[in-house]
Amino acid sequence: MIVILKRDATEEQINHIVEKAEHLGLKAHISRGVERTVIGFIGPEDVLRQTPLEVYPGVEQVMPVLAPYKLVSREFKKDNTVIKINDDVTIGGNKLVVMAGPCSVEGLNEFRSVSKKVKAAGANILRGGAFKPRTSPYDFQGMGEEGLKIMRDVGDELRMATITEVMDTRQIELVAKYVDIFQLGARNMQNFSLLKEIGATRKPVMLKRGLSANIKEWLMSAEYIMASGNFNVIFCERGIRTYETAYRNTLDINAVPMVQQLSHLPIIVDPSHATGVWSLVGPAAKAGIAAGANGLMIEVHENPEEALSDGAQSLLPEKFETLMKELRIVAKAVGKEL
Amino acid sequence: MIVILKRDATEEQINHIVEKAEHLGLKAHISRGVERTVIGFIGPEDVLRQTPLEVYPGVEQVMPVLAPYKLVSREFKKDNTVIKINDDVTIGGNKLVVMAGPCSVEGLNEFRSVSKKVKAAGANILRGGAFKPRTSPYDFQGMGEEGLKIMRDVGDELRMATITEVMDTRQIELVAKYVDIFQLGARNMQNFSLLKEIGATRKPVMLKRGLSANIKEWLMSAEYIMASGNFNVIFCERGIRTYETAYRNTLDINAVPMVQQLSHLPIIVDPSHATGVWSLVGPAAKAGIAAGANGLMIEVHENPEEALSDGAQSLLPEKFETLMKELRIVAKAVGKEL
Amino acid sequence: MIVILKRDATEEQINHIVEKAEHLGLKAHISRGVERTVIGFIGPEDVLRQTPLEVYPGVEQVMPVLAPYKLVSREFKKDNTVIKINDDVTIGGNKLVVMAGPCSVEGLNEFRSVSKKVKAAGANILRGGAFKPRTSPYDFQGMGEEGLKIMRDVGDELRMATITEVMDTRQIELVAKYVDIFQLGARNMQNFSLLKEIGATRKPVMLKRGLSANIKEWLMSAEYIMASGNFNVIFCERGIRTYETAYRNTLDINAVPMVQQLSHLPIIVDPSHATGVWSLVGPAAKAGIAAGANGLMIEVHENPEEALSDGAQSLLPEKFETLMKELRIVAKAVGKEL
Amino acid sequence: MIVILKRDATEEQINHIVEKAEHLGLKAHISRGVERTVIGFIGPEDVLRQTPLEVYPGVEQVMPVLAPYKLVSREFKKDNTVIKINDDVTIGGNKLVVMAGPCSVEGLNEFRSVSKKVKAAGANILRGGAFKPRTSPYDFQGMGEEGLKIMRDVGDELRMATITEVMDTRQIELVAKYVDIFQLGARNMQNFSLLKEIGATRKPVMLKRGLSANIKEWLMSAEYIMASGNFNVIFCERGIRTYETAYRNTLDINAVPMVQQLSHLPIIVDPSHATGVWSLVGPAAKAGIAAGANGLMIEVHENPEEALSDGAQSLLPEKFETLMKELRIVAKAVGKEL
Repeated sequence: MIVILKRDATEEQINHIVEKAEHLGLKAHISRGVERTVIGFIGPEDVLRQTPLEVYPGVEQVMPVLAPYKLVSREFKKDNTVIKINDDVTIGGNKLVVMAGPCSVEGLNEFRSVSKKVKAAGANILRGGAFKPRTSPYDFQGMGEEGLKIMRDVGDELRMATITEVMDTRQIELVAKYVDIFQLGARNMQNFSLLKEIGATRKPVMLKRGLSANIKEWLMSAEYIMASGNFNVIFCERGIRTYETAYRNTLDINAVPMVQQLSHLPIIVDPSHATGVWSLVGPAAKAGIAAGANGLMIEVHENPEEALSDGAQSLLPEKFETLMKELRIVAKAVGKEL
Repeated sequence: MIVILKRDATEEQINHIVEKAEHLGLKAHISRGVERTVIGFIGPEDVLRQTPLEVYPGVEQVMPVLAPYKLVSREFKKDNTVIKINDDVTIGGNKLVVMAGPCSVEGLNEFRSVSKKVKAAGANILRGGAFKPRTSPYDFQGMGEEGLKIMRDVGDELRMATITEVMDTRQIELVAKYVDIFQLGARNMQNFSLLKEIGATRKPVMLKRGLSANIKEWLMSAEYIMASGNFNVIFCERGIRTYETAYRNTLDINAVPMVQQLSHLPIIVDPSHATGVWSLVGPAAKAGIAAGANGLMIEVHENPEEALSDGAQSLLPEKFETLMKELRIVAKAVGKEL
Repeated sequence: MIVILKRDATEEQINHIVEKAEHLGLKAHISRGVERTVIGFIGPEDVLRQTPLEVYPGVEQVMPVLAPYKLVSREFKKDNTVIKINDDVTIGGNKLVVMAGPCSVEGLNEFRSVSKKVKAAGANILRGGAFKPRTSPYDFQGMGEEGLKIMRDVGDELRMATITEVMDTRQIELVAKYVDIFQLGARNMQNFSLLKEIGATRKPVMLKRGLSANIKEWLMSAEYIMASGNFNVIFCERGIRTYETAYRNTLDINAVPMVQQLSHLPIIVDPSHATGVWSLVGPAAKAGIAAGANGLMIEVHENPEEALSDGAQSLLPEKFETLMKELRIVAKAVGKEL
Repeated sequence: MIVILKRDATEEQINHIVEKAEHLGLKAHISRGVERTVIGFIGPEDVLRQTPLEVYPGVEQVMPVLAPYKLVSREFKKDNTVIKINDDVTIGGNKLVVMAGPCSVEGLNEFRSVSKKVKAAGANILRGGAFKPRTSPYDFQGMGEEGLKIMRDVGDELRMATITEVMDTRQIELVAKYVDIFQLGARNMQNFSLLKEIGATRKPVMLKRGLSANIKEWLMSAEYIMASGNFNVIFCERGIRTYETAYRNTLDINAVPMVQQLSHLPIIVDPSHATGVWSLVGPAAKAGIAAGANGLMIEVHENPEEALSDGAQSLLPEKFETLMKELRIVAKAVGKEL
């Protein structure tokens, strides 16, 4: 922790801060420049981070030296984490993962039919929503447990892993019974109760980035899960909110290599939400792979005109199949396999 | 709902859209311009909003005619809603409300002491956090039920209403026992499970704006609560996330008159979070009142240097007292009473 | 300048950085913590700021200690700068200034008529655009010199100071002949050629904040003008670009007290552009005054339905008159005069 | 243009709007729904866009049907524009272009040396700044004409095209003498004087996206250039400003396919500015190519530690060479050539 003092900070103020620090068991190094005095504190940063040094008289600015996350960081673990989903699928290694399926589970026949097609095209995990976070209370809210059962049945039938969103601590046990990966949605990225309780399980969890979460906050939310004991965390970049209105969200492609530099955990890209427009999904998916992502999550629907949610960003199965072929070539070009 | 077609949309495509609309029980009005054909649909907007017309062949753009919220809108209710908290306090009328107290409840003595001072200065509702949403799992997480009890005891002693945050559906019953107003925090603005269950109670709820929620989404979250039966909703503008890093958040002062034009519900301003810097709290509070807000929520702490959270944005009781005197004059200048 | 090294920085890397610094005439203070080594540099920050220390091997992060602006800062000059416009009007003192008039000068009769009305209502400076920065090349681009002449004539007739935008270095001489204050528009805040040449004059200049300029960049643009010799700089907060689309821009009210803490120069608020909606102009103007601004710039048009630009955010003269009366009371409430 | 009326709009108000429209030579189609009346106007949109219908009594919202740009649009020209730079280089076709070189021209020897290396690695256009837009007046402002001459000499020697920024209308003639492509910087994207005068030349111009310009504004700035007669416009996505501070800018990768859908003009990506961090340049460059960009602009410096500007985001020539090899493979994977 580094504290920059105001130009006119007094000796008394400096002593006050130093005493406080020593009282907390820290060492203070004072460095007097021409225009400013700077104090560096050595000792546990956690202790200092919880002390609001900004309010001490004479202080101009406080700058942390260390990142606030630990378990998620590359410093904690040098090698990439590879998360095993089942005997066939891992996330984080050389083989990329593709999660595909409809936004919402809308019925057994519909889900089975589209699932067969995405499997045939090369997807290895089935996605679908049973509990849907909808902006309007008047919109379709998901099939609930009925939808979970459908996912389980179709997943078993096709021998595919499944992923679905959990929105509430009370749903965790139920969802855990039916699916293989928890999805933590963008709107719940800082639902700390949910993070802690999912951290108490050992099931893999995909943590979507909040609508306007910065990288540090996103890593801190993963830290919540890991600090509770669950180390199987996958990041998912799904677009951020910016001033641009030409698309639903702005895919932050920089985040892919940046998260990989800061953390050992895998990261996948969701080009469907990150664009919100089906005609941009292909280019965004390719960009994600080229930037080094460990996989993709893509919405596919057999009849977008009738989709109960997110029709505008869903691909038809034939378009998805063509895209998968193109993605395989891009993956190979960056030394990965799909 | 208005649908703008692509320049080269075919008759077949137009017919397909019109048929779909009629099938849903809507009437279509076609208007052929020189460069574009436009179709207006008449009938229930809800039906249409759930149909992804963007994906229909030939469609360029879809524009809703009506706002998606109903119960929260001025159209639904012309007059300002005034919410009764207790015999002494209402929110939404000519008399402004000031909620004040520490960020977190840190102990009985501390809370009682600061509460007496904010009451003496003119605050009419006590604020304090018992369950704290903290970015880091290693930071103070709040005193829990113990903190709620302290709030109840001090509130009773001073005959003041109390407000505290509820973060989880499982806390609702507990919190309801102890405090008078639920606070729904920025990070939970789109925690739809929580919105629905708070909507199932009848206790007043202050709904903070999400970090990057737009006005429409904010109103839709209030709609969730009202649609579940609880009409006692108060908006709280607490700053939004922008590119500016000179302050913790950017107070969106435009939101105050805009929400009042769109909705009949009261809105208050939280200058502490909306700036994150104690030296800006005063000017921001005055701006809030001048712009027409129905009240303020301000963090006050007797010893910010020792505060377990948000010390940097807390006012000392003496500063708060001075500010209250100034605010009284500003309130009067805009025809309100404080 | 403070340099934080990577955990695994080698002695060789540390020596390399220290040598470099000493070569530049700086002193290095090394501070070895448990997890990180930190180097503080003492000496001219300018020298260091121009050295990209981030790229030195072993460096994790570089943090400047001093703000990059000098002449604009409160440290350079403690007291508020008060700028004299003419014998009647100063900006920056206890008496607030109101600049009012149409977005564009559209003709002599129109300009004279509305000018008389804004004067009668209490405005003390006339605003109007002769060169208009328009997003579309097909929109009205302003009357040019003809418009400047009209401003001069009406200004003389009514004995009022005038302000207009200058968009190009080649217009400076011309504009200087006719008006009393240069306006530097948001889109030109970082037009460095223009900043320098306006800095070479001694005429007061109002520097609008760029659409997404942060406070530091804004102050640096004023520094450009002052470094060229012109100390008569007035800031103008006119709203920033955020994700919110309910208004044209988001008034950043926090900027008012923040700029006043960092700088001795006056700051005024433009509620017309900062909202883009006439029904929000009044509340935003009051908020500006309450937050401590030194004045306002407001668009007024006698017939917004026929305005050649910005009709949607213009007030009718009667509305402006009423608002001025209300503003006078708010000004008084915060110890100012209008 | 579509006008949505308020629920309580009167017949008189409707007639007033219709009369106005007819007076302007437009036809009005009235459509009366249950909750709202909607008026569609048929006729030249330009006329209507310049009429502030929002201020008419009874109007709730005004929605344009047509995009405001014409010459830049795909509707105006279906096929991709391919711009010929010289006998060897075109931009917009199947063969990708790479512009490389230092941020600033710092001397003949330095520029020649790095230019030889980027040419050997496969770059086909030399970049370098002679006039530098710097946030601080105290930072290096470029070598001016001396720098232009160096670019010309080295370009001739290596038979390579050159690109440099022009910041001021008075520099156009000078810059035109020495280089092959004008660069219009992000800060000048809405410097309309500059746009018009560059539009009056016929030299190719690369138009960088403004720091927070949306796609529509960016296209409108290109429209300014084309409306003045210069059809050789190349877009350059160089990152936008968002709330995220982990990188200097956020590469908006969605913009690449979106601009290509809306316009026939080529678009290239600048991963150096779009990240600001050299270790992210490679992944961002690959993402740009994978998303379909027509080329890249990359900063390369032989000694970033001594660079007079942007050292932190510059690649060493060896890193650039390696990246070019990788990019060639990615280009091939998406059917392009590099």
